[in-house]
Amino acid sequence: MPRMKAAIFVERGRIVLDEKPIPDVGTLDALMRITTTTICGTDVHILKGEYPVRSGLTIGHEPVGVIEKLGSAVTGFREGQRVIAGAITPSGYSAACQCGCSSQDGAGTRHGFQALGGWKFGNTIDGCQAEYVLVPDAMANLAPVPDGLTDEQVLMCPDIMSTGFSGAESGHVRIGDTVAVFAQGPIGLCATAGARLAGATTIIAVDSVPARMDVARRMGADLVVDFKAVDPVEEIMRLTDGRGVDVAIEALGTQGTFQNALRVLRPGGTLSSLGVYSSDLTIPFGAFGAGLADLKIVTTLCPGGSERMRRLMAVVASGRVDLKPLVTHRFKLDDIEAAYDLFSHQRDGVLKVAITP
Amino acid sequence: MPRMKAAIFVERGRIVLDEKPIPDVGTLDALMRITTTTICGTDVHILKGEYPVRSGLTIGHEPVGVIEKLGSAVTGFREGQRVIAGAITPSGYSAACQCGCSSQDGAGTRHGFQALGGWKFGNTIDGCQAEYVLVPDAMANLAPVPDGLTDEQVLMCPDIMSTGFSGAESGHVRIGDTVAVFAQGPIGLCATAGARLAGATTIIAVDSVPARMDVARRMGADLVVDFKAVDPVEEIMRLTDGRGVDVAIEALGTQGTFQNALRVLRPGGTLSSLGVYSSDLTIPFGAFGAGLADLKIVTTLCPGGSERMRRLMAVVASGRVDLKPLVTHRFKLDDIEAAYDLFSHQRDGVLKVAITP
Amino acid sequence: MPRMKAAIFVERGRIVLDEKPIPDVGTLDALMRITTTTICGTDVHILKGEYPVRSGLTIGHEPVGVIEKLGSAVTGFREGQRVIAGAITPSGYSAACQCGCSSQDGAGTRHGFQALGGWKFGNTIDGCQAEYVLVPDAMANLAPVPDGLTDEQVLMCPDIMSTGFSGAESGHVRIGDTVAVFAQGPIGLCATAGARLAGATTIIAVDSVPARMDVARRMGADLVVDFKAVDPVEEIMRLTDGRGVDVAIEALGTQGTFQNALRVLRPGGTLSSLGVYSSDLTIPFGAFGAGLADLKIVTTLCPGGSERMRRLMAVVASGRVDLKPLVTHRFKLDDIEAAYDLFSHQRDGVLKVAITP
Amino acid sequence: MPRMKAAIFVERGRIVLDEKPIPDVGTLDALMRITTTTICGTDVHILKGEYPVRSGLTIGHEPVGVIEKLGSAVTGFREGQRVIAGAITPSGYSAACQCGCSSQDGAGTRHGFQALGGWKFGNTIDGCQAEYVLVPDAMANLAPVPDGLTDEQVLMCPDIMSTGFSGAESGHVRIGDTVAVFAQGPIGLCATAGARLAGATTIIAVDSVPARMDVARRMGADLVVDFKAVDPVEEIMRLTDGRGVDVAIEALGTQGTFQNALRVLRPGGTLSSLGVYSSDLTIPFGAFGAGLADLKIVTTLCPGGSERMRRLMAVVASGRVDLKPLVTHRFKLDDIEAAYDLFSHQRDGVLKVAITP
Repeated sequence: MPRMKAAIFVERGRIVLDEKPIPDVGTLDALMRITTTTICGTDVHILKGEYPVRSGLTIGHEPVGVIEKLGSAVTGFREGQRVIAGAITPSGYSAACQCGCSSQDGAGTRHGFQALGGWKFGNTIDGCQAEYVLVPDAMANLAPVPDGLTDEQVLMCPDIMSTGFSGAESGHVRIGDTVAVFAQGPIGLCATAGARLAGATTIIAVDSVPARMDVARRMGADLVVDFKAVDPVEEIMRLTDGRGVDVAIEALGTQGTFQNALRVLRPGGTLSSLGVYSSDLTIPFGAFGAGLADLKIVTTLCPGGSERMRRLMAVVASGRVDLKPLVTHRFKLDDIEAAYDLFSHQRDGVLKVAITP
Repeated sequence: MPRMKAAIFVERGRIVLDEKPIPDVGTLDALMRITTTTICGTDVHILKGEYPVRSGLTIGHEPVGVIEKLGSAVTGFREGQRVIAGAITPSGYSAACQCGCSSQDGAGTRHGFQALGGWKFGNTIDGCQAEYVLVPDAMANLAPVPDGLTDEQVLMCPDIMSTGFSGAESGHVRIGDTVAVFAQGPIGLCATAGARLAGATTIIAVDSVPARMDVARRMGADLVVDFKAVDPVEEIMRLTDGRGVDVAIEALGTQGTFQNALRVLRPGGTLSSLGVYSSDLTIPFGAFGAGLADLKIVTTLCPGGSERMRRLMAVVASGRVDLKPLVTHRFKLDDIEAAYDLFSHQRDGVLKVAITP
Repeated sequence: MPRMKAAIFVERGRIVLDEKPIPDVGTLDALMRITTTTICGTDVHILKGEYPVRSGLTIGHEPVGVIEKLGSAVTGFREGQRVIAGAITPSGYSAACQCGCSSQDGAGTRHGFQALGGWKFGNTIDGCQAEYVLVPDAMANLAPVPDGLTDEQVLMCPDIMSTGFSGAESGHVRIGDTVAVFAQGPIGLCATAGARLAGATTIIAVDSVPARMDVARRMGADLVVDFKAVDPVEEIMRLTDGRGVDVAIEALGTQGTFQNALRVLRPGGTLSSLGVYSSDLTIPFGAFGAGLADLKIVTTLCPGGSERMRRLMAVVASGRVDLKPLVTHRFKLDDIEAAYDLFSHQRDGVLKVAITP
Repeated sequence: MPRMKAAIFVERGRIVLDEKPIPDVGTLDALMRITTTTICGTDVHILKGEYPVRSGLTIGHEPVGVIEKLGSAVTGFREGQRVIAGAITPSGYSAACQCGCSSQDGAGTRHGFQALGGWKFGNTIDGCQAEYVLVPDAMANLAPVPDGLTDEQVLMCPDIMSTGFSGAESGHVRIGDTVAVFAQGPIGLCATAGARLAGATTIIAVDSVPARMDVARRMGADLVVDFKAVDPVEEIMRLTDGRGVDVAIEALGTQGTFQNALRVLRPGGTLSSLGVYSSDLTIPFGAFGAGLADLKIVTTLCPGGSERMRRLMAVVASGRVDLKPLVTHRFKLDDIEAAYDLFSHQRDGVLKVAITP
């Protein structure tokens, strides 16, 4: 039985590179040989034991690679084809999928909805920080990489770009909007880029790390607020001349950014939340207009599926957005433990790392 | 200078009937002679000092009456015409109004948005618990009462019906949805009726007062949950066979109903909030899916304006909904202090009172 | 090799009952034993050669029955279960399906979109006017019948009810709207019922057959216009006091009904078209406001898929709508040729026929 | 009584510069002193007698200028302020305005809707090709010009930019869409710019005039099709590898462009129509999928109002779009007859002319 290398969660604090069998390919699956993958902030939550997964699971949900083998019922693809799959791999057939809510895919459940159910890689099934990964419901999830795009150019599509853009999309950013984006990590930077693409004409990015603030400008921020230098709520109200923003995107997952996002909204505005929270949230009474200010709070889990991936790669291919600056470091899979060390400690200005088996 | 009777806020705990001058009619105003009005839960908040207004203000924001006099620039109406105006009286010309967000009307402000700015009657200008009320921006706010409808039939349109229906509308209730409505006071009962009208086919109403639970069934509730007899979250999950609801409407304004509404949502569902909150709210981490369950929280302040009023009166005229059961008591304006006493103590099964000068 | 009876298209003018092998069950399929089915107006188009299908094809796309056998990869269902499937059987995994446009399912095509591609039964694969039918992509298409509902109660769900309701849904009918529905055949009657469910408060149905006009009133029409007695455009403008309607639903597929629907729209209104047209259409210049009246024309092909079927059966189960009056005649499968004769000639007040093998 | 110069429609074929009284300022009006205006294709239709207006009317609906005098009820502005107003001047208070359909403003009509009713300047009231223009409902229509923007920078906002952008907006162009824009006159060029701003990543512009094709590329077109060199439908299908486009924008107003726009749509796509048609239109049966391809046809009249103008000027101020290349020629008001001659004959590569009193 052939074996492969994989980054495996052992216990809180330990993700190690080890060997596992290359999985068998089920009827609807595809086996993908990984050529490039990356580490996500969520993987660090797993490493730290903040998000529980079972011991022995392969981590990682951002695969770029080549089809090694197709399940017997899979049509429309060929072995050897360069493909990606989304971090979220919806079945296509559950009630949630048919409702346009495929990230909450409840395939196999009684009602067809399951919170976060579309997130399978490195969560409920083996992930892609490995030499091979099994893609479930392959026809709904594989997306061919357009000719001429490199692995690194499409490496952000499975998660970071899909999630970040969804912040603008779910917030219904439209031409001429003023948008604030709280936190300029990889997700926030993609939210900035997405807000720009969707037509926002005043984009205010909030962070405090100079390198991130620089990349924010390259991604489309018109103004950058350093929350360590000024109170970001006061500053955004000043920059908008007291009006506030149409849409505020939360891209960190903390009470502070959440409440600041709410505080800078104009009446009738939308807080589009992307962050992964780790405790209860408080909605400040005043910022919420006592419930009477026509505010909306929308949350979005990374949209997946092959059509989403096709669309995002079309954006990359068009040249409208260049996400290459987000890949700051490169590692071989053999060195993934070092990559985790760097990434989890946010050393050396790291934004995203490219991992190549 | 002719004078009129009016219910006036004096200080915390005191709303009294007193006399005031009948106001002069400005260019864009209409003077309306009140034939029927009512008391709202918000008026009780004012009475108790929980919502601050200036001493001397006439209270009340639900006017039914007759046009006494039109401002010099007002066209399209005639004196003597039976009309209503909404609780919210948008200017029509502010940025908020032009954005479809007219309850946050910021006419006269720098940017044209003001939180709750559309609510003027009995808040920032004299209200309608009086013999006369001045309707601002009359062309945007007066709506003729269709022939054949009584005052009491349209008395719910200015606030209760508009607010309650908006719970279903902002939640985008659609054909075949399962909807829970938390609290069956006048607003919640109208939310139940609105959910039914919008096509919900399983409506679960939550309350504990038997009379309200009965009216809830008449308004369209398929199932009624007594939160004093059972845990409403468990019961709703049981009634939906573990699925949860597509839309949960909060119609009270408390932490308990808010968090219960969140807890019964299916992934991807919408919490449509109508309540007036009086303190910070907590979003429970788990019920929120850590921010990843594609949930939405939307808030709505009573939609106003003449076209909204026309539409709601068309609903009444169609016979699709009968809100007459909501008027449980009747008082003369001279006895409004007794009406406040009854209503604020929720005595005698009161839902809404009709006040006639 | 076991055989079954099936209604087979032979050539223009000839659909005959004949025998065929019971099909083998593929990996993703389900074999359904038909207990009740019906004939659609589209089947009559096929019979008359107006819509071309290949000779030898089994006709019919409205199946109610029992799962006889499941494909090896199908989970979540059990043999012996009572189910329906929609007339449209989307794959779930094509680009069209992932875009919320599953009736244009292009599974197996290069781009994943194919006009009308979701309509397979009795069009591109064998249909269900037979003892058995093979349901493709079974997990995306089978929907269990709720306990207590009879075959005839759910017989309209696969096509007539789904199509008719979509007229109101795609037209975004909302609470308080005035809606006109042109033609009260089975689809139009369901459009009338759907408009009522979605909150329309003035529904004007247009037809000339007294029995259909009667059923229209039972389905929710407030006013019925006999287009043989009056000019329907003039009459609708009169009934709306010159205003016109918010949404006009076309449910026949002719130039006359199409242009009349356009002519009764208020500025900014929506023509929601359900009809199957058989030639070019003309948009009258004046009714179209020279292209400047903010009008919309939307077309919809019957929505399918298991979640759609679940939702429609929930509507039936709720008792909000009773479509039983639409089943006017009953035939055994052995007599289906007689059923075609009756139905295609619209004899004896026929609306829909129930066919039982 | 002070007089002013104005371009006046006399009869078919004759627009002349003549003198008129400077109008009196009504209660809700503002008198604007024009500093720059322009000529629209619609004005040429008027000149040619193709769109009837009354003899003696001042033509023109694209005003940039300075507030000369405010009506007695107008607040929030000051005399001397630099402002623009939209080509469409909604009242703010009609039913149409309150429905988000303000271009069909029916202020003063029985129901509050009137086809094209928002278009007043140079249509039903005196326009702005003059030294002064009276702006009706000034509070709903005046928009201050941001500091630092020149007259020519905002000259496209009142009509061309608002209309062109609305082609993308009403078509719901979103991130990653493929969009075709038929005709690259001033409106089509702005539609191209709008599609780019809204996130389209493949924009195919169709025209045949080399200068317009060049400007199309500057506005954001990725591909330009010369309809005189190739069949545009075949070419667009080739360029999209047989898929078709998500949204096709019609920006000319002819049967040819309309039907070509329909023919290049993918199933489920949207035809967003901006053109002013001068005769009945034909919808080709096949391209329409017999009414079953889930296609949509939406039409939009230039959105107006002060908030729309504010938003468009914010886009200009952001630098996201540079519409200065559209102003190809400049004339004094005294020479407006020569300007009409040049513009109506499309001589010398003219796109738009700037007219300064």
